[in-house]
Amino acid sequence: MSELLVAGGQVLRPDLTVERADVLVDRDSGEVVAVDDPGALDGDETLDASDGLVVPGLVNAHTHVAMTLLRGYADDKELDAWLQEDIWPVEAELTGDDIEVGAELGLVEMIKSGTTALSDMYFHVDRIADAVERAGVRAVLGHTAVTVGKDDEAARADLQQSLDVAKELDGAADGRITTTFQPHSLTTVGEEYLRQFVPKARDADLSIHFHANETENEVDPIVDEHGVRPLEYADDLGLLTEDTYVAHGVHVDETEIELLAERGTGVAHCPASNMKLASGMAPVQRMRDAGVTVGIGTDGAASNNDLDAFDEVRDAAMIGKLAAADASAVPAEAVVEMVTRGSADLLGFDSGRVEAGANADLAVIDLDAPHLTPAHDLVSHLAYAVRGSDVRHTVCDGEVLMRDREVLTLDEAAVRERAEAHAQDLIDRAESGE
Amino acid sequence: MSELLVAGGQVLRPDLTVERADVLVDRDSGEVVAVDDPGALDGDETLDASDGLVVPGLVNAHTHVAMTLLRGYADDKELDAWLQEDIWPVEAELTGDDIEVGAELGLVEMIKSGTTALSDMYFHVDRIADAVERAGVRAVLGHTAVTVGKDDEAARADLQQSLDVAKELDGAADGRITTTFQPHSLTTVGEEYLRQFVPKARDADLSIHFHANETENEVDPIVDEHGVRPLEYADDLGLLTEDTYVAHGVHVDETEIELLAERGTGVAHCPASNMKLASGMAPVQRMRDAGVTVGIGTDGAASNNDLDAFDEVRDAAMIGKLAAADASAVPAEAVVEMVTRGSADLLGFDSGRVEAGANADLAVIDLDAPHLTPAHDLVSHLAYAVRGSDVRHTVCDGEVLMRDREVLTLDEAAVRERAEAHAQDLIDRAESGE
Ligand SMILES: [Zn+2]
Ligand SMILES: [Zn+2]
Repeated sequence: MSELLVAGGQVLRPDLTVERADVLVDRDSGEVVAVDDPGALDGDETLDASDGLVVPGLVNAHTHVAMTLLRGYADDKELDAWLQEDIWPVEAELTGDDIEVGAELGLVEMIKSGTTALSDMYFHVDRIADAVERAGVRAVLGHTAVTVGKDDEAARADLQQSLDVAKELDGAADGRITTTFQPHSLTTVGEEYLRQFVPKARDADLSIHFHANETENEVDPIVDEHGVRPLEYADDLGLLTEDTYVAHGVHVDETEIELLAERGTGVAHCPASNMKLASGMAPVQRMRDAGVTVGIGTDGAASNNDLDAFDEVRDAAMIGKLAAADASAVPAEAVVEMVTRGSADLLGFDSGRVEAGANADLAVIDLDAPHLTPAHDLVSHLAYAVRGSDVRHTVCDGEVLMRDREVLTLDEAAVRERAEAHAQDLIDRAESGE
Repeated sequence: MSELLVAGGQVLRPDLTVERADVLVDRDSGEVVAVDDPGALDGDETLDASDGLVVPGLVNAHTHVAMTLLRGYADDKELDAWLQEDIWPVEAELTGDDIEVGAELGLVEMIKSGTTALSDMYFHVDRIADAVERAGVRAVLGHTAVTVGKDDEAARADLQQSLDVAKELDGAADGRITTTFQPHSLTTVGEEYLRQFVPKARDADLSIHFHANETENEVDPIVDEHGVRPLEYADDLGLLTEDTYVAHGVHVDETEIELLAERGTGVAHCPASNMKLASGMAPVQRMRDAGVTVGIGTDGAASNNDLDAFDEVRDAAMIGKLAAADASAVPAEAVVEMVTRGSADLLGFDSGRVEAGANADLAVIDLDAPHLTPAHDLVSHLAYAVRGSDVRHTVCDGEVLMRDREVLTLDEAAVRERAEAHAQDLIDRAESGE
């Protein structure tokens, strides 16, 4: 039995108190074995957490990791124009190679900012799975299906592929990869298809993840056509269960919030994307008050523009207060809980807490920094002052993915070089209309 | 003549284009001498900018730098309760020593995140000036006067002190320090005092800086009492001129925006503070459209909770879009301009642009990072992806303040240790009611 001791630091406990403690990790099982007084535990190898705070690895509940290749390519445009004029033409050119390279870049960025698990929506998912396997993180993957603009055969094939990919990749990378069935959204997948494929996903015991209520443009057509709010329509389709989580949930009314709470359906809140695309402000405090599980996601790098979950934590606290017009709404404790336990619950991983029996998915934050001084309240620092660059080590499934800021599982310089080359080539292809 | 060559990188030019160039700095005058093709210039000493982007040092247009001692002490409370229950009782205990130590901590943090100039509002200003002189940055300082809750004699003394401090410290630190007369706000300084002291400030040729229209609670009493909007009232008092800039400007109507534009009065926008205190969203795009000069400030660390101006740049772009309900509002170029030229114009410094004749106030951003890959658009990166920890070197007034992340003008470890001790002692005193 090979054991790793994370020693010398303070530890954020599941109740969000902080204490001086060491953490013992079993590499074989990938679990935390014990959290105990400093010096009380022994391991085969030690990871130095002195002047550090051991926290659960952050969980990014909604992203499109390969979109790092489009970081900064097109900004500051209205959502529909941005998608139609910039993003979709480039995405149409993406090859499997591009996607693997983009995923590697995003995973390096996540490891360097303390994220150990993600939920991804994209295509060429086998290539993303390869990158996840090598990177060493935990992920929920899936093939995102769209039916609008497709003939019936292509529409069905896309949804069937989403089912097939979810069945095939579930349990890959020694169990670090799980999957979801992914109809893109309620407006981009037609009702007849949802009526047919949602039951198939349920029969196959698949979890479901889709975009919902991101903008008013997604709400109005459904209200017009069906006479009910989008999440009422989704419920009628059997989409809302404990095995479903939706991305965004910006424009949700009280009825929909109650429905999410009753059905046990969670929400992956993406504050930066919602601000950058001017989508609006999700009523996070109201959802939490109603008992909805809310996690936090970065969405893709093209609408963020980084995958640093600490930015997202701060954004969630900030915009949560604005949305509620109340400075006491969505406090530091809430956002720290959301990005750890909250997101992990959505993804179905036993992560997001540093405790015996939980997955050994950890980050060690370096507290030796002027912007983290004085140390009145470390939970406040996690919410408002820590940034991804303060992460010293990252551990997932018991393995050290980054030590002293050096990523061990992927070659950062090579990944960056490949990504730069693929990104430029991709844009050249898209802009030449090739 | 001692010359510093910033060589090997790309340079952000005043028109926000980026080109490969070297920058020659004259240390004696503290100015940029030339920007020319790579290899075309020679200096006595070289600062390595390879893989880097040379940008103007960021200008923090509104802060209370010594409040770093209260970072994370009290969060997530409604503004009035937060001030009355948490902030003011602690501020009442602040000694000159505390303030100097807090200012040093804040200045270390700013230098490490590429800020080279700030506009500060506080008290014990001589101690802040000492810290600024040692740190090597540029600053507009002042003593902030409040009259509410004071007897007439104390009220007049406070305003007189604001005048005296502004006259005394102007030009300190070899001209790196200038000053403003600082009535705290339109609701915390009585009308009779403003009528008496604003003309005195104008007679003494002093610039004026005050908080305005931050919350609705600051607007309503003025509308009730005077029958006009706060900035109309301020204009009647002679407060709005080209030598005035106001902090916040969140709740301003069209009439007030026009008034700011006509009078040439600028606004220091503080997006993080406005979000964290749920104050609201400033109409930045509308102010810019009307021709108002808008700069960017962090406000104090207690309502932020860091002094990283890159966070603020990102926040300004994000909240600017939400406020306008338009994803094309407040684009990357706008926020980069605001935190450089915009803020520098408010403060009256010839900084905020890398160009011959301007102050040699620079930061070199390390582009060799996954979150800054690929390099489609470096201005987009500055707005959305760069964080303070990406700053490799910081230069102000021709002197290198930080080289390869090591602060040269202050002893970072000693500053942190002193700050931690002073912060804990301060809270102990405040909470024991001593
Ligand atoms: Zn998405
Ligand atoms: Zn202020």
